[in-house]
This record gives sequence, C-alpha cells and structure tokens, in this order.
Amino acid sequence: MGQNPSQPSFQRVVIAGVGLIGGSFAAALKAAGVARHIVGVGRTAASLDEALQLGLVDEVQSDWALALKGADLLLLAMPVGQMGAVMAALAPHLEAQTLVTDAGSTKADVIEAIYLHLGEHIERVVPAHPIAGAEKSGPSAAHADLYRGKKVVLTPLPENAPHAIDAVRAAWAACGAHMFQMSPQEHDRVFAAVSHLPHLLAFGLVHDLAGRANAEQLFKYAASGFRDFTRIAGSHPEMWRDICVANRQALLAELDAYLAELAWLRALLIQSDGVGLEKLFAEASDARNAWAANQ
Amino acid sequence: MGQNPSQPSFQRVVIAGVGLIGGSFAAALKAAGVARHIVGVGRTAASLDEALQLGLVDEVQSDWALALKGADLLLLAMPVGQMGAVMAALAPHLEAQTLVTDAGSTKADVIEAIYLHLGEHIERVVPAHPIAGAEKSGPSAAHADLYRGKKVVLTPLPENAPHAIDAVRAAWAACGAHMFQMSPQEHDRVFAAVSHLPHLLAFGLVHDLAGRANAEQLFKYAASGFRDFTRIAGSHPEMWRDICVANRQALLAELDAYLAELAWLRALLIQSDGVGLEKLFAEASDARNAWAANQ
Repeated sequence: MGQNPSQPSFQRVVIAGVGLIGGSFAAALKAAGVARHIVGVGRTAASLDEALQLGLVDEVQSDWALALKGADLLLLAMPVGQMGAVMAALAPHLEAQTLVTDAGSTKADVIEAIYLHLGEHIERVVPAHPIAGAEKSGPSAAHADLYRGKKVVLTPLPENAPHAIDAVRAAWAACGAHMFQMSPQEHDRVFAAVSHLPHLLAFGLVHDLAGRANAEQLFKYAASGFRDFTRIAGSHPEMWRDICVANRQALLAELDAYLAELAWLRALLIQSDGVGLEKLFAEASDARNAWAANQ
Repeated sequence: MGQNPSQPSFQRVVIAGVGLIGGSFAAALKAAGVARHIVGVGRTAASLDEALQLGLVDEVQSDWALALKGADLLLLAMPVGQMGAVMAALAPHLEAQTLVTDAGSTKADVIEAIYLHLGEHIERVVPAHPIAGAEKSGPSAAHADLYRGKKVVLTPLPENAPHAIDAVRAAWAACGAHMFQMSPQEHDRVFAAVSHLPHLLAFGLVHDLAGRANAEQLFKYAASGFRDFTRIAGSHPEMWRDICVANRQALLAELDAYLAELAWLRALLIQSDGVGLEKLFAEASDARNAWAANQ
C-alpha cells in the first residue's frame, strides 16, 4: 500500500463475505481505483460465483492459505455470530503485512474474538462499523455507492499501530464514507439505543400482531404509518439474532429504560392525562422533526 | 342530492375543519363534480382564508346558522377531542335534510358525542374514518387525490337510515376511496393495534432518547432504520393526544399485550437464547414481508 494514507493503494484485498456489505466495499475500492486485485472468500459457492460474475471480485477462493497469500488488506463482512469461527480458521494463514478490518454491527464481541484468535496480529486489526445497509442482501444488492456519504465508526484498540489505523481509515474513506471514532463500549451503547432496540421493538410488534386470531384483519387495515414503523422488522433474522445476542447487555439496559418510558405512558393513559400526553408527544415530535431537518 | 347513491350530487356541502382532511374531502368532491357549493367553517380565520384562497371551499362562515342553511352534507373534520363541543354548537342549526359524517380516527368516543348532541338527527349521522394522512397538515397540504385508492371505514349506527348510509358511502367513494364497514368497537380495537399503539411506541422511543444527557450523540448516529421507525413520532401532538385519550381502553389492552411480548423478548435476551430470538425474528420478518408484498 502507498505511504500516503489519504490515497491508499492496495495490491491484494481479501473480502470474507461477499454480500451487500463486503461486495459493496469491494466495488467501492475498485471504483476509487485503490485496489488492484480483489479476492472473495465465503460460505457458499453460489454467492462467490455471483460476486465473481458481477465483477465485485476478481478471484474467489475457498482455501484461506491461497486467499491470504500476499494480501495487504482483509475485510471481515459476515454476521457477527460467525466472526470468531472465521478468525480461528484464517489466523494460521494471516501474513505479517496484512491489515484487517471488519464490518460488524457490534464491537465488544468482535473485539473479544480478535483478542482470542488474532492476538499476535492485533496491531494491524482495526475494528470498524459502517452505518449503511439496505433492505436487500447478497452480492446482487452490492454497489459501489453504498458507503458514499454514510458514517463509518472506527473503534481502534490500544494495541493498534498508528499506521494501521490510518490505512484502515483511508480504505473506508476511499469508499466515500465519513469517518468517526469511538470506544467499543461507547459504540455498543449508542447503537443499542438508536438501532438495536428499534429493531427489537419492530420485530416484537409484528410478531405480536401476526400471532393473533384476527391477524389478517389487522394487517388489512395497516397503513403507511405501520409500513414505515415496521420496515426494519423485515430485516435478516440471523443477522439480528447475532447482534442482539452479541450486544445483549447494552440492549437489555436500553430495553429496560424503554420499559420505564412505557410504564409512564401507561400511567398517563390510565389517568386520561391529556396534558401529560400532549407534553410528551410534543417533546418527541419537536425532537424528531429537528433531527430529521438536519439529516 | 341525486337518487342514485353511486352518483351523488350535493348542492351545498359544509366542511367543519378545512385542514388536510377536510380540505382534501372538499377538493375531491369538487374534482369529482358532485358538489356545487362548498362552505368552510373552522377554528381560525387564517385557515379559512387560506382554504378560500386555495379554492378548496367557495365560501367561509363563522356562523353555524348561516353555514348550515340549506346544507345537504356536513363533514366534521377536526381532532376528535373537539368533536363534542362542535356538535353542541351546531346542533341547534342542523336542518332535517342534512346528512352528517365525520373523519375521526376513533369511533366510540365520536359516537358517544353523536348520541349526546345530535340524538334527534341520528338517522342521518353516519360515522366514518378515512385511512389517509400525510406528514404535513393544514389547508395547504390538502389535495383532491388524498383519498384516492385509500380505505374509508364506515361504522354505521343501528339508527342510521339506509339512504343516509348509502349517500355517505357514495360521497366518500366519489373521493376515490375504497369503502369498508365495521362496528365502532371493532374499528377501535383494530386501529389501536395497527395505528395508535405504533404511534405511542414511536413517541415514547424518541422522548426517551431526547431526554438523555448524550441525546445529541445518539441522534448523530441514528440512521435510516431509526428514521423510518420514528417518522410517526413527528405527528401532530394534539391530534394524537385526543386519539389516545379517546381510545385509551383499546389502546391499553394493546399496550399490555405488547408489554407481554417485550417481557418474552427480554427473557430470550437474558438467556442468550439465539434459537428463540431467530425464530421470533423470522416469524416477524416473514409476516412483515408477506404483508408488504401485498400492498
């Protein structure tokens, strides 16, 4: 790679997991002209073939030794529940020059796996979380602009070498992302609140209604408010299982805070406290509209 | 009005509340060529002037006697909390030929007010709820196509005359709406589940987060999932205060069912029960995606 971290140049990039997230990272690096050769590794031959045919990657490999030989950057882009097993499998073949980053939606658990499996490489393993996604998944959903204008949060480790942090930051920045930095603990608390809890709440509402005897009638009259509120309930069950289990401590804290809020709302309803309800709704509405106006 | 209820013809229509809902009803009747003269009545002179200038109504009135003289159709289109007071004010001036309908989001409370204030006219008062809305409100947001392809639920009363039900149905159908019918109790239970509860949950989440010491940081990292989930938390506080108070019994039943669902989710999280979480998420995701595919 080049000496100037603002203009990285990778000779051989390995993408583990060539779906929406990994495939888009590959496409973005290619489009930016900063990756010469990209190798895809993945769970299923079908996804790898698709990624190859779509031109997201130049080569596919099922053998970690062959994939990682001479690599200067490795992205781990699979559901967080698989990260540990993947790291264990690739660790013996990871070379001394290879930078590693990941795209996991939770960080504390991924970092625990890094210490466990990639300890001897830790100065070059820089965790990251791209705040981007889409309703569709798989290689066919990937595109070079997925990260453009989106946030990517780095959660560097104390053991990371400064040059590794700079190079990983430059790689994500080359995808068009705006770069931010947090501690892993802070990251997991923030995303428990603004992402993981809303997903849990949306899954819960749809599950509750879908199990009713009159579910068909209920869904018949559900309209645009319901559609937007529950869009994230259509998300990938395995991915969200992994996120919820991995970040369950922060998520439980958020869920309990929310249950306290609902207990308050319940008391206002029981008392028919219109003044209290309107005040709470107005505070929420003002905050939501001020936030949306700044997006 | 005409003898054929599928092609209504109103000489004088009175719209009480000329905002998004009432203004769009006026515009739609005009566009369909089924209303000759439309009179607007409302709380504020500014809204009435705006509705007049926009051509939503032909005339504005602040005097119920003048407004209702010779009217063959009256729409009540104000927040449900105001319905009783408005009915009390207009009742002495309501003529024996005037059909009445409303656009309230809840029905049991509106019907209670109808029995209380419009009892002697009850055969011609047919409650309705158009399942349509928009983020914006006021006369400037009104347009003739708001109800096109949307559902309107009639909740007729046992005392309603068949010709009155037919004519009110024909008026809403002339706006392009698909017409449905339910009992008021069934209506209020269904919309507590698919509309009122989601609004309460979204208001609650934003209110919870907005009150945190790190609210600014949280909102900074909120992304598209949060945006859609909380869109309805930007809704009109007064309107939703009225809906929640009016339908609080059905809403409390829904809230309690949802709290039981969250207690289950909380137990799965505490136990790190990935299998249970994935099963629940998959059932929700399948139900949500099947519903969305049919929209």
